[in-house]
Amino acid sequence: MSKDQSVPKDGQDGQDEQYMEIALELAREAFQRGEVPVGAVLVRGEEILARSYNRREALQDATAHAEILALREAGARLGSWRLLGTTLYVTLEPCPMCAGALVQARVSRLVFGARDPKGGAAGTLYNIPGDPRLNHRLVVREGVLQEKCAALLREFFQARRRAGGGADTADTAHT
Amino acid sequence: MSKDQSVPKDGQDGQDEQYMEIALELAREAFQRGEVPVGAVLVRGEEILARSYNRREALQDATAHAEILALREAGARLGSWRLLGTTLYVTLEPCPMCAGALVQARVSRLVFGARDPKGGAAGTLYNIPGDPRLNHRLVVREGVLQEKCAALLREFFQARRRAGGGADTADTAHT
Repeated sequence: MSKDQSVPKDGQDGQDEQYMEIALELAREAFQRGEVPVGAVLVRGEEILARSYNRREALQDATAHAEILALREAGARLGSWRLLGTTLYVTLEPCPMCAGALVQARVSRLVFGARDPKGGAAGTLYNIPGDPRLNHRLVVREGVLQEKCAALLREFFQARRRAGGGADTADTAHT
Repeated sequence: MSKDQSVPKDGQDGQDEQYMEIALELAREAFQRGEVPVGAVLVRGEEILARSYNRREALQDATAHAEILALREAGARLGSWRLLGTTLYVTLEPCPMCAGALVQARVSRLVFGARDPKGGAAGTLYNIPGDPRLNHRLVVREGVLQEKCAALLREFFQARRRAGGGADTADTAHT
């Protein structure tokens, strides 16, 4: 197994923060397009394998969360569904679908910004990436640029409420 | 809300079994293509909205489980990610990713065949479709054509072991 497939170390020299800034930029792009603002970046070594943001409304696809799109893009790019040695940066704690997808794809490390109190599955409602019963586990770091990530989501939902967003206004951040 | 968006009733007159037979046929198609044999059908009223089978290897996409592909196909067909009033038939208990996706897509009812003792998230390791903390819940029926569904998976993994399938031989049924 090549060196770059070992579990990546905790980001040194502010590396985690740098990648999270890119994920935040992608989340802002989602915001501008009227999507719940969540962005993700998938990295191996120094290489960014995928950049994505939530596109549920644009694609009318319930599975089109930022994390899922990043895994699919990286799989297509590498020609392999196995993404060992990668780190997924995402601005919001993954939901059960996305946390399960990270396990399926054998992603090695997850770094997220804000917790999702209503639907988070990486420590809040569930801890799917750390479940010893599943056949793969991830190292998880949370809270990177937490306040910026959370503020963007708050701003989005406040704007939607002001606009009278209907039933979805009561939804959780990511669903 | 139209009548067909209410929660579908438990299959009458063997309807659940009929749709599961179609899902089984799709699972056999997966088998022939060297994929872990899981098939799925998404139904609303009398209409089949999507037919799918696991295509992880063909697409080199860790998220290409039968359930996810069915949700994406139906979303594209209906032009809506919201699949209220639908029933998803699948030969194997969904993993956390797929169970979470069913919640995301607001599928109303889940019918599955065999349990997945190593990774099932609809009653075995987790009960994601029934979690009252999430913003949507599904009615679940399990055990429909259970023995046929399980036998197909056993046959697949036995054949792979005989062929010396390598690391994946030790995987769970669906992962």
